[in-house]
Amino acid sequence: MRDPSFGFERVAIVGIGLIGASIALGLRAAGFRGRIIAADADPAARTTAKRLAVTDDIVADPAVAARDADLVILAVPVGAMEAVGRAVATALKDRAIVTDVGSVKAAVIAMLEPILPAHARLVPGHPIAGSEQSGPAAGYASLFRNRWCILTPTTRSDPEAVDTVSALWRTLGSDIEIMDPARHDLVLAITSHLPHLIAYNIVRTAADMESVAEQEVIKFSAGGFRDFTRLAASDPTMWRDVFLNNKGAVLETLGRFSEDLAALQRAIRWGEGDALFDFFTRTRAIRMSIVQAGQDTAAPDFGRPRPEDEPEEAAPRPLSALRS
Amino acid sequence: MRDPSFGFERVAIVGIGLIGASIALGLRAAGFRGRIIAADADPAARTTAKRLAVTDDIVADPAVAARDADLVILAVPVGAMEAVGRAVATALKDRAIVTDVGSVKAAVIAMLEPILPAHARLVPGHPIAGSEQSGPAAGYASLFRNRWCILTPTTRSDPEAVDTVSALWRTLGSDIEIMDPARHDLVLAITSHLPHLIAYNIVRTAADMESVAEQEVIKFSAGGFRDFTRLAASDPTMWRDVFLNNKGAVLETLGRFSEDLAALQRAIRWGEGDALFDFFTRTRAIRMSIVQAGQDTAAPDFGRPRPEDEPEEAAPRPLSALRS
Repeated sequence: MRDPSFGFERVAIVGIGLIGASIALGLRAAGFRGRIIAADADPAARTTAKRLAVTDDIVADPAVAARDADLVILAVPVGAMEAVGRAVATALKDRAIVTDVGSVKAAVIAMLEPILPAHARLVPGHPIAGSEQSGPAAGYASLFRNRWCILTPTTRSDPEAVDTVSALWRTLGSDIEIMDPARHDLVLAITSHLPHLIAYNIVRTAADMESVAEQEVIKFSAGGFRDFTRLAASDPTMWRDVFLNNKGAVLETLGRFSEDLAALQRAIRWGEGDALFDFFTRTRAIRMSIVQAGQDTAAPDFGRPRPEDEPEEAAPRPLSALRS
Repeated sequence: MRDPSFGFERVAIVGIGLIGASIALGLRAAGFRGRIIAADADPAARTTAKRLAVTDDIVADPAVAARDADLVILAVPVGAMEAVGRAVATALKDRAIVTDVGSVKAAVIAMLEPILPAHARLVPGHPIAGSEQSGPAAGYASLFRNRWCILTPTTRSDPEAVDTVSALWRTLGSDIEIMDPARHDLVLAITSHLPHLIAYNIVRTAADMESVAEQEVIKFSAGGFRDFTRLAASDPTMWRDVFLNNKGAVLETLGRFSEDLAALQRAIRWGEGDALFDFFTRTRAIRMSIVQAGQDTAAPDFGRPRPEDEPEEAAPRPLSALRS
């Protein structure tokens, strides 16, 4: 039987957003018995996390949270990793494990390795889970269940610490993939970073069509556009930092996307129906594989609530879900 | 009190796919008392529709279905509209109303107006509803509820027939928008056609990355990519026909999209963090407006079933949902 506390008496979570809060809730739900202390620079996040009792305590200063912690989890945007790394560095106890959840790995490793003390053990990580929502109130214990968590140990990573962090993510319901940091950054560029970039872009293009009113775009968005608006509602700070810190892989995949799009544009211009049909036929198989792999629902339309499940006269929907 | 039968004794639905079947089921659920006869060229669709008793009868020949019908609904891909229009033309009774559900309007009007007899009354239409699924088994009565249906009458349309078709869609739960055909084609190019094109394209780009295995794309798709695979699993015939028949508006919006994407690419290359942040901040408001307008759910992640709602050890998901 796996010990859901890993012998840890104290875990620190720096950044109590969607991911940090979900880790705290997931650990508690799995039977973790040690103390969980969070730190967050944002007073509003602290107030919300305190109200919801997401962790045992929450402070402003990362060093205060990290002091005496067996494990420190950095769950801040990639651009803030270096600052919080510096903040916790002097507080880390001997053999403390430090892990992170950043969407980019090579850049984060380059930030953290030089500033963490030699007696700490860094295990870079990235859970492939989330939603368009941000903040501690959006967190939930099962966010990581049936999702992959990628760990990207470096030559300096302690194998025992890697095993411990792996076991922790398994406790949260995740499967573990060990990957080279540069490979992670390429794979995530195509599976996550490019999709977000494209989603942000199409929403902007639609908003800027001076010949089509924004109200029309909104009214008729069920034709397909609304799908993109979900990703394009994601946290702007997080995504700015991703693109600034995974530039090479993003530009490489974006170049390929544009090249393929130019070919598709040409097929439309020249009325090449057979080419379009073949193109549109291939892509269906990929969705079937994703559903079979348990990475998406088989329900049509993502399982969106159907009108029969909702009141006939739709009341304005709650917007709490879309806090900024 | 509105008569849910409109005095109609017989309605013909040509094409019993997702849309045609949903119209039949929706009419019946609303209390329509006349006969509903479908026609479909595909024996498999006829067998399924018969087994599910979607309509009172189903035949192969559109003319047989259309004979004596008060209303004929053409629910086939845009590229098949001309052929079914010709097939029903000689069977249409005096003052029969003909409407369609095609995703493109100017091209469909150009196909149908010359071939329908002067004694029939054409009301071109387009319900903004659907899913990535195809075929009669995917249909359901509430598909059109809280969705817009756009009607694009021409100078030759009979106002009384437009009113009747409007009332019929309202009976199915839709709101009606009357629009010029060319304007419809532009508005739908940005809200529906371009999103599908982009989704198809990114799925292809990912599948073609020789440096990233398809299995990796599938495993880590929850990072964002999976969202696009839903639209890219849509019916290839339908979408080929849309792009062949709305070429001008699609190429116009695609040109704008590529232009905006080039600007974004440049901002990434030059590390313009403030520009990226501003860009990513603007788009969130559009999703809020869509949710407020009742055109998408406020639930995070489209209300996808959460792992706690599903068995811990995920069994292979049913693929019946993804029939081709």
